[in-house]
Amino acid sequence: MTASEALPAVLDRIDRDLDSSLDRLFALLRIQSISTDPAYAPYCRTAAEHVAADLRSLGLEASVRPTAGHPVVIGKGGNGPANGHAPRVLFYGHYDVQPVDPLDLWKTPPFEPRIETLDGGRKIIVARGACDDKGQAMTFIEACRAFKAVTGALPLDITMMIEGEEECGSKNLFGFVREYADELKRDLALVCDTGMWDAETPSITTSLRGLVYEEVRLTCADRDLHSGVFGGAARNPIHVLADILSAMHRPDGSVAIPGFYDGVHDLPPDIKADLAGLGLTAEKFLGPIGLKIPAGEKDRMLIEQVTTRPTAEVNGILGGYTGEGAKTVIPGKAMAKVSFRLVGAQDPEKIRTAFREFVRARVPADCSVEFGNFAGASAFDVAFDNPALNKARAALADEWGKKAVTIGAGGSIPIVGDFKHVLGMDTLMVGFALDDDRVHSPNEKYDLRSFHKGIRSWARILAALAN
Amino acid sequence: MTASEALPAVLDRIDRDLDSSLDRLFALLRIQSISTDPAYAPYCRTAAEHVAADLRSLGLEASVRPTAGHPVVIGKGGNGPANGHAPRVLFYGHYDVQPVDPLDLWKTPPFEPRIETLDGGRKIIVARGACDDKGQAMTFIEACRAFKAVTGALPLDITMMIEGEEECGSKNLFGFVREYADELKRDLALVCDTGMWDAETPSITTSLRGLVYEEVRLTCADRDLHSGVFGGAARNPIHVLADILSAMHRPDGSVAIPGFYDGVHDLPPDIKADLAGLGLTAEKFLGPIGLKIPAGEKDRMLIEQVTTRPTAEVNGILGGYTGEGAKTVIPGKAMAKVSFRLVGAQDPEKIRTAFREFVRARVPADCSVEFGNFAGASAFDVAFDNPALNKARAALADEWGKKAVTIGAGGSIPIVGDFKHVLGMDTLMVGFALDDDRVHSPNEKYDLRSFHKGIRSWARILAALAN
Repeated sequence: MTASEALPAVLDRIDRDLDSSLDRLFALLRIQSISTDPAYAPYCRTAAEHVAADLRSLGLEASVRPTAGHPVVIGKGGNGPANGHAPRVLFYGHYDVQPVDPLDLWKTPPFEPRIETLDGGRKIIVARGACDDKGQAMTFIEACRAFKAVTGALPLDITMMIEGEEECGSKNLFGFVREYADELKRDLALVCDTGMWDAETPSITTSLRGLVYEEVRLTCADRDLHSGVFGGAARNPIHVLADILSAMHRPDGSVAIPGFYDGVHDLPPDIKADLAGLGLTAEKFLGPIGLKIPAGEKDRMLIEQVTTRPTAEVNGILGGYTGEGAKTVIPGKAMAKVSFRLVGAQDPEKIRTAFREFVRARVPADCSVEFGNFAGASAFDVAFDNPALNKARAALADEWGKKAVTIGAGGSIPIVGDFKHVLGMDTLMVGFALDDDRVHSPNEKYDLRSFHKGIRSWARILAALAN
Repeated sequence: MTASEALPAVLDRIDRDLDSSLDRLFALLRIQSISTDPAYAPYCRTAAEHVAADLRSLGLEASVRPTAGHPVVIGKGGNGPANGHAPRVLFYGHYDVQPVDPLDLWKTPPFEPRIETLDGGRKIIVARGACDDKGQAMTFIEACRAFKAVTGALPLDITMMIEGEEECGSKNLFGFVREYADELKRDLALVCDTGMWDAETPSITTSLRGLVYEEVRLTCADRDLHSGVFGGAARNPIHVLADILSAMHRPDGSVAIPGFYDGVHDLPPDIKADLAGLGLTAEKFLGPIGLKIPAGEKDRMLIEQVTTRPTAEVNGILGGYTGEGAKTVIPGKAMAKVSFRLVGAQDPEKIRTAFREFVRARVPADCSVEFGNFAGASAFDVAFDNPALNKARAALADEWGKKAVTIGAGGSIPIVGDFKHVLGMDTLMVGFALDDDRVHSPNEKYDLRSFHKGIRSWARILAALAN
């Protein structure tokens, strides 16, 4: 029996077993695995052991592996490729959660999970970690459990890596991935830590923007000057900086640094049409932060501006007198922090070099500039013709009755970059979080529907990948 | 006998009496009248009493008048106008001095004045206040003394106002001038607190630049944003500010704010030729501060840029993250401090309004701007055809054997503005300080030649004004 043949029975099993799935999720949610606070380290250890035991109950060979911080749970098992083409997958999630303060804003204790029924009958799971990432990770684990129960085996060769430091920077995970690269290098990574476009629209995050972060330190005069004495003749580094930063964007919102758009490609028309169909308006996106007018490239949709287009931003600027009142100084120095979000094949090193040349060309001959660099990471994206991506999209559409959209995330998830660059594999990020899940905030929740249909979604994706 | 007829004898008396003049200067220099440090308040009182006694010895009616801070010495006397046209003059100087720290850099104690002979025979008076302003003020007082000794009277109706808070902001003087306006309002003010162009070139400071000082506070989003999430769509207030500040100057260095140059007039050709003849080079003026290229209006001489042309300077800028390392923030707010040096008839209120309109026109519709104002003072200048000015120029030329130049000072001396706007009189600023006088620094000095020829210069000016 192939995985696809087994799928109807697996889905049925998921529906019937939902209460047990919830019990297992609640057991995990009760563990206070706050990773950033050393006082909770024993709970992190407990959570890791709990997850390992859960994986063993699926027939996985599971171990709790120490790091310099909280341990990583590794589970391995499942069938080898039945048809010789099915990918071996690495699933990534995390068992740690955010702190719960301010505690007094929680309606019920954060580690006492409960089901609440909202007006209209919508049911939500309320607890710290209900969504991020215990609830989401458990959708994958419970899908595996259903397959195991129905077919006696997992549908694919599956390795799971469930870490305990995502909420405090994953700082030990990068070394861990390198140390265990042979075990962790599979054909495809799966992550369940992202969201749906909205409650009805399933989505796969197919790109993450990269980052270059530079500091520009400009020196004109060798001291601060009195503007009465030198004003009109001495070069003002704030003026020089303002000219440079102003020149960085064209009136149409595009970035004017030569070569900046090398490696940036337009989205395929069908993907672009999908994004347009989402109808993201400035009112919806910018309204909540008090803005109305998209500030980016004028010929791009807002959703492109924040996900699939590169940016240049000044993150900080400082020069001269900035205290109370007046001081008539022409400063000797001024500085700015400038960062670039990268997409596609933009090369961080080339962007950095081009930016520095752009700046140097605008620094007067009697002034000098120094640079500092704080980050350089390529963008990550999955090719739109990746077969696994399209199988997953079809599987999600089957479950939700609506076309699944591929979206880009504006920020970076460094470990996904490592999966690509260290382990040589693409990642499909599929998640069921909703915008109102209050992730990182009091009264975090996960819709029961997200949990239930999330499990069903993964069952469908696993079956599709197995074929 | 007219003042002019008496002049040769007066000058002769000045030469013969120089040692006594020095004794009187030294007596004043020994008083530790540091105005900014309350511990020295008794010395300031002593200095005021000392000056008052000195003025009484010239036949002036002198009084020490209290203020909320250190007292002001007022002396009044001299002849009424002999010919009905001679101006009544108000002489302004100050008896207070700067602090002396760092004391260990003084070669000899700062309040033990001495004459030092430099290589080549040049003699200097070394002490705190030797130049600023005890030495300079005493050139005028000693010139009066010589007239009194030779003719038995002062050549003009003279009022002297010697204050004690110039080195800490003259904060009580503005009210004082208003309170005693009737007594202080004369036909012309004379000040001896400025410098020579160089050791051979006498000069009169005929203009002071005014000042408008604004703070611009820009708000875009109502909070700081994550550049990964909002980068590309959210307006960045640092970008808006950079665009505004960059637009403030044209490529030719001129200020682009509409109407900015209203009231700015070109110098008369002869004055401009005088300034050109001074040969102020970028190497000489900018070299000592590590710069080479004048940054102001390209079609103006450097000396114009820093004295007789208006400027726009950013004195401070702050926005976003400016600490160590990287933070990928798009700030909600950014601010800059911007000031304008004004010349001629530029109206501070109009400049302020024009600047604010210039900024508002460049603030996106969904962002907002607030302004703060810290100063608004008109420029001051003496008309080049002022008869007193030309008499003084001629008198200085007679003394120094070289044409006296009229120069502008780049900064502001607020009390001179009050003389003009509150008391309705012009001010001639004539001084004998040299660039190497170490004013405000350890080992302050005044050339003996500055003191001697300074006294002679004032004698000649008083004689010229009396005719």
